[in-house]
Amino acid sequence: MMEVDILNGNRLALSRLLTQIENDTPAGRETLRVLFPRTGRAHLIGVTGAPGTGKSSLVNQLARHYRKSASPQRVAVVAVDPSSPFTGGAVLGDRIRMTDLSGDPGVFIRSMASRGSLGGLARATAGLVQAFDAAGYDVILIETVGAGQAEVDIARLAHTTLVVEAPGLGDEIQAIKAGILEIADILVINKADRPGVENTERALRGMLQLAHPVQRIFRHHGRPERLTPDTPTPDAPLWLPPIQRTIASEGKGIAELAESIARHREFLIKTGDLERRERARLQNELDLRIQETLVKRWQAGMTNEQYDKALEKLVKREVSPEEAVEALTQEPKK
Amino acid sequence: MMEVDILNGNRLALSRLLTQIENDTPAGRETLRVLFPRTGRAHLIGVTGAPGTGKSSLVNQLARHYRKSASPQRVAVVAVDPSSPFTGGAVLGDRIRMTDLSGDPGVFIRSMASRGSLGGLARATAGLVQAFDAAGYDVILIETVGAGQAEVDIARLAHTTLVVEAPGLGDEIQAIKAGILEIADILVINKADRPGVENTERALRGMLQLAHPVQRIFRHHGRPERLTPDTPTPDAPLWLPPIQRTIASEGKGIAELAESIARHREFLIKTGDLERRERARLQNELDLRIQETLVKRWQAGMTNEQYDKALEKLVKREVSPEEAVEALTQEPKK
Repeated sequence: MMEVDILNGNRLALSRLLTQIENDTPAGRETLRVLFPRTGRAHLIGVTGAPGTGKSSLVNQLARHYRKSASPQRVAVVAVDPSSPFTGGAVLGDRIRMTDLSGDPGVFIRSMASRGSLGGLARATAGLVQAFDAAGYDVILIETVGAGQAEVDIARLAHTTLVVEAPGLGDEIQAIKAGILEIADILVINKADRPGVENTERALRGMLQLAHPVQRIFRHHGRPERLTPDTPTPDAPLWLPPIQRTIASEGKGIAELAESIARHREFLIKTGDLERRERARLQNELDLRIQETLVKRWQAGMTNEQYDKALEKLVKREVSPEEAVEALTQEPKK
Repeated sequence: MMEVDILNGNRLALSRLLTQIENDTPAGRETLRVLFPRTGRAHLIGVTGAPGTGKSSLVNQLARHYRKSASPQRVAVVAVDPSSPFTGGAVLGDRIRMTDLSGDPGVFIRSMASRGSLGGLARATAGLVQAFDAAGYDVILIETVGAGQAEVDIARLAHTTLVVEAPGLGDEIQAIKAGILEIADILVINKADRPGVENTERALRGMLQLAHPVQRIFRHHGRPERLTPDTPTPDAPLWLPPIQRTIASEGKGIAELAESIARHREFLIKTGDLERRERARLQNELDLRIQETLVKRWQAGMTNEQYDKALEKLVKREVSPEEAVEALTQEPKK
């Protein structure tokens, strides 16, 4: 029984399951289904930010910190690279990491390059996280590169989201990232020994003030919503994202960052937000899977000829996209 | 009749239609359906690249160039910002542009900030492009910010894709973008008067050599596919992306860039690639709309109570995500 091996901490069995999940095989889905009741215990930490901010070193250092603590935690890392749809950049990253933490049975690192739709990647990431969670990993770090939608998807997947910045990446780049500040639970200024760190921190504080009193709340459909001044403020206490300076290459600021993460988790538990985020996370996964299922089922009831004929008419402008959709999705007549 | 006004070049009617398309109203969908047979004549140019590369100035200068040519072209600009899901950064951009080209009835500029899913944004962009196309705009420039999936979606929407770089944005950033080089038909080094331009061009040439003989071909499902050395090379001539230097702020290199774009269009027509890209573009839109329709139809057959009950069981780990999907998507029993 593969499930038993995984629950017993067999790394080879886990590694096989991760591959099955990435490839979305029936065996992988079945194992995940059996393991699912064992999930929900790990703390999920999302780590995001632009290239060049040193996210990977930061993740390595956090992993090492959790391993060295008085009560060592088992740590898994899922590194996702949605920004390179064609090239497999994540593989090199694996090797660099491995030299650092390899040989420690309490650490498991898995990289994943984007191989198709963002939706497929999000499903695969959710699956990997569930596998690690069931296998008893206490902390799961989910690292991603990119801007925009990918970050929002991480926020949906993680309990605590770190947004990593670095001094000197250019004002224009900082400005464009105003949007992702709003998904940050903790802001990290890594490479804090670089010149310009004061400017970066000032810019971030300015943006945070602009964003205040913006607070993420997860509404019925699991989307982060902005509270405008017109929106009645809920009575719940507010989490103001702290700004933490780190120099990951020297291990500086890591203990303080880990403390911030622990405080955020306490906050989530105390306010009931942990439960709300768990719910939003699972709802997001449910919605994605429903969509996939509906499309697959539709495809099964459709011949290539029917589809190609409708596409041909569309290309010739004989029908509009809307009319083509109607023709292809109408219920079969009885 | 709104359609007649739009075909007659009424800007107010067009502007109203664009808003209807963005909001996905029934009236907007109906007008697009009626106008659809009039589309397919414009040349669609995608412009993408990191923040700070000066994409907007470049787009402005290209628009001005097409207006000033011996046979002036009507130019539309669709500026899409998928990287800021929360803040409406596109609005400011509009104002900056307007001072430049406002008052010219042959130019229409429309900005769109991301308001929901990437899928919704892609559909809205496709709709705006169809409206401009039907309204007789000869050239439609589609500008986007971001990394990853958004660029790939642009490549699917455009006939000619420009990837814009600038000297001095950092080697790490350049390296991460290796993936998007593969969607470029033309590489632009803007701000070419900056130090480091030689290094940037050398790096880009190196990446292009690595990518050669990679050529995009659109296979059955409209996805760009990589030709590996094992793949038999098609007999069709190959388009090697040229590298064009520009200084958009001074209008330098713009005429040469426009010539490159014209050569690429000729290449597309001569090789039959234009038709293949048109087909892939429409197929992509068709697939997106089918997905939307299936989800909407499913939602209509589902009560909130049924959905909430299944979600509740999932949150309590009584069922796995897969089991919840099965329960929610099973056909009603007769």
